[in-house]
Order: sequence, then C-alpha cells, then structure tokens
Amino acid sequence: MANYRLILEYDGTAYNGFQIQSNGITIQELLETALARIAREPVRVIAAGRTDAGVHALNQVANFHSKLSVPVERIPIAVNSLLPRDIRVKSCQIVADDFHARFAAVAKTYLYRIRQGAIESAFERHYCWWIKRPLDRSLMRKAGKLLEGPHDFAAFAASGSSVKSTVRTLISYGQIDTDNGIDLRFTADGFLYRMVRNLVGTLVEVGLGKRDAAEIPAIIASKNRNCAGVTAPASGLFLEQVWYEQARMDSDHA
Amino acid sequence: MANYRLILEYDGTAYNGFQIQSNGITIQELLETALARIAREPVRVIAAGRTDAGVHALNQVANFHSKLSVPVERIPIAVNSLLPRDIRVKSCQIVADDFHARFAAVAKTYLYRIRQGAIESAFERHYCWWIKRPLDRSLMRKAGKLLEGPHDFAAFAASGSSVKSTVRTLISYGQIDTDNGIDLRFTADGFLYRMVRNLVGTLVEVGLGKRDAAEIPAIIASKNRNCAGVTAPASGLFLEQVWYEQARMDSDHA
Repeated sequence: MANYRLILEYDGTAYNGFQIQSNGITIQELLETALARIAREPVRVIAAGRTDAGVHALNQVANFHSKLSVPVERIPIAVNSLLPRDIRVKSCQIVADDFHARFAAVAKTYLYRIRQGAIESAFERHYCWWIKRPLDRSLMRKAGKLLEGPHDFAAFAASGSSVKSTVRTLISYGQIDTDNGIDLRFTADGFLYRMVRNLVGTLVEVGLGKRDAAEIPAIIASKNRNCAGVTAPASGLFLEQVWYEQARMDSDHA
Repeated sequence: MANYRLILEYDGTAYNGFQIQSNGITIQELLETALARIAREPVRVIAAGRTDAGVHALNQVANFHSKLSVPVERIPIAVNSLLPRDIRVKSCQIVADDFHARFAAVAKTYLYRIRQGAIESAFERHYCWWIKRPLDRSLMRKAGKLLEGPHDFAAFAASGSSVKSTVRTLISYGQIDTDNGIDLRFTADGFLYRMVRNLVGTLVEVGLGKRDAAEIPAIIASKNRNCAGVTAPASGLFLEQVWYEQARMDSDHA
C-alpha cells in the first residue's frame, strides 16, 4: 500500500461539485471510478477542498491509499485516459503514509474572476461573474483589506452548514486588475461553506456603491448572514492553491 | 427597410457551423430566429465567413435587411436576450443598403491556437489544438512565410468543395509565442474550404520534423490535397477579423 498525492485541474461546469452526492455526477466519483479500474479494487479519494457545483480547480490536491502496478510517473496519463477531458490529473507523487490532503492543508487560495463590459463574452460564460455596471475597485480593495485577519466569519457562511467554529483567519486578500475585469484572491487557513462567494458578493455591493467599505467590521460583528451581501455565482470561483508545510510536501517518497 | 451590420462573437463548440444545415443546430438559424422575433417577419442573415462545426468567432460580421422598431443601439441587448449565451451580438450599426457582409469583405484573419504541454488543460479543450510533442517554432515560421503570396491553394482545399478558382492570396502569416503555445494568424483575401486547418496541419508536421519547411513550394505546386498535411482540429480555429474598405464601413448611416 502506498499513499498517492494527486494535483488536479477541473472545469466544474458540468459537475455537482467535488464530493459524492446522491444526485448529480461529481468529480470524486469519476476519479474514484477511474482509479478503481487501475487498482482493480475500490479507491477512496480525499480532497483538500470540497468545491461546490460549478466551481473550478486549478490545483486541487487529493490523496488515496492503494497498491497500483502502474509506475507513479505514468499514473497521470493512465488516469486521464479514463477521465472526461474536463478533469485532468496534472501530477502524481507517493507521499508519507500519514499525509491527508484535507487535514494537512495549512491554507488554501481561491481565485474569483470578475469580468466587466456591456456585452457578456461568449467564451467566459462559465469562468467568471459578468458584471456590466462599473465597479469602484479602490473601494473594493479597501473593503477587502478590512476582511483580513482572524474573524468569526459566521455572517459569510451559508445557512445550513454545521461546523464547530466559524472563526477563520483570512491570511490575505489580493485584488489584481485584468484586461477586462478584476481577479480577487482569498488565502485563508480554512473557509466556511460558500464563504468566498459570500465575501465576493459583499465586495461587489461595495464596488457598486450599494454598501460602504466601512460597513465591513459591522457585518462581521453581526455574525448574521442576512447582514452580508449576495452569494456570487459559482462560475467565477477557482480553487487555485493548497498550502502544506514544505517538509510534508517533500516527505519521504515511501 | 434598413441594412443592419452585426459584429458577432460565438463559441462554436455546440454548433454545426454558421450556415444553416439540414442536420444539427447552426448559429445562422438561432440568429435568424431571434431577429425574426424582433422583426415579426422572416429575416435572412448573410455572414462574412461560413465557419465550420466547432469553429469559433471573435468578430464575425453579418448583415440583414429588415425594418426593426427597436432603436439600433438597443439591438445587441434585444437580440442577445433571445440567443443562447455562447452566441453574442457585440454591436449593431445601420449601413449602406448595398453593403454585403460576404461580398464586400476584402480580407479575413483567422487565428489558430496551439497549446503545448504533457497534460492537456481541462479548460482549453474546446479552444485549441493540444500537442504534447515539442514543435520547432522557427521551422514553422519559415514554412509559414513560404505560404504567403498569391498561390493556387488547391492542395489545401478539402475535397468535395466546388469553387471556380482555387487561387487565393495569403496576405500574411503571423506566428506569436504565447504562455504555453503558439498563436498562428492567417490573413487572406479569401479561404478555400478547410484551408486554414489544412495549412495548420501541414505547418505542425513541419514543426514536428515530419516534413521539411522547404517542401512547401512543391506541396503548393502539386495542387494535390494528398501532398499536404493533416487537417487540424476545428477547436483551435477562430475567425478573428473581417476587413472591409474603410469608406464602406463608415458609409452613410441610412
């Protein structure tokens, strides 16, 4: 038995999220089915981030325990040949037995892409939030900076999620102007259910002048989902990076 | 009656090309159906380039004669509300009565996107030709330059096409290195059926070392489709620009 770590890229448009659900096709089930064909036994995959329906991943990290006869360097090609083209294994490595893609992650970075312009692009429709009205980017940046730090983010958690604590540390908020839009980046030690999309919805309301940037501390303090902004669409969201302790990433290749 | 000129962008992935066919959904039929609903009468659309199944457009030009009650500046929004999101009208203008999107075009530019790397991107699958093996870009550039000029391009025309003359002038071949690939641009006074994809297939064979760049003149001289390379996939091809005489483009807004 070895512990394999995968880096995955996927276009989430066609899927009902990463995690296996009773309804809809998920990335996890397609991946487990492909791996089981290679392993000739059931395989259970653990992913760092359980991305929601329509959410994409540029570098999702996952691990699974199995005994594969395929050499590790050929696993990406073998698995990809059994997966639809919108899910790709970018790399595979054997890692320490106790590596757990979710529990070992110290932080994750999500990218949210906003695009602007009078006419929506025919090509970007699944990969951004298209907003026609101009956004005040400096007000958004100001509001985003007020989100940084350890906070109880309950106001930004989708109702129905049950977690022990709603305190998370937003390590950094980054905002970069692109050709015809804005890229927003959120790095945190963890995220509540729909937290990034609720943060983005709130920042966009600031950018549209519907809210004051200075309201952010009061929204956080309210711990009330109704005080924050709308939920941004899934299409703009990408799991971009998962952070681990370097020692663990490089750890003994079994 | 006025003559309307549209600039269109579309993701061709889901369609059986621009022109109405007996089988499969085409961009022309969706556009004509949308326009007919606004005009309350049948509308016939003429496009500059009849892009093939799976081929995209960044700036397709089309025109139609009709009498619309919607003000011209609001036509894009009105038509887009009746079109699927992968077809967008970017602009609409009233032009001279005799403007004909196809016959008045003096040249067209097609972009062909090649992407390289060991693992195909989950996001680019419909928008490029993914080639794993490295391409010699300088040999491709050399071969491409030999294609420029007026030539009988019969060797690059799909069999089954019936045109009076197979002589076309390739005004320019351009090749730009991108992040993880190459953008090839072909500007010509006209293109034969599948000509760009056959040119690209031939240039890629040069880039892979399967053919010599110096063979190009002999391939042209053969006028034999079997002497040229494979047909590149539709997914990489974009109609990027249609060129008209400036006077005509600016002509009296009826």
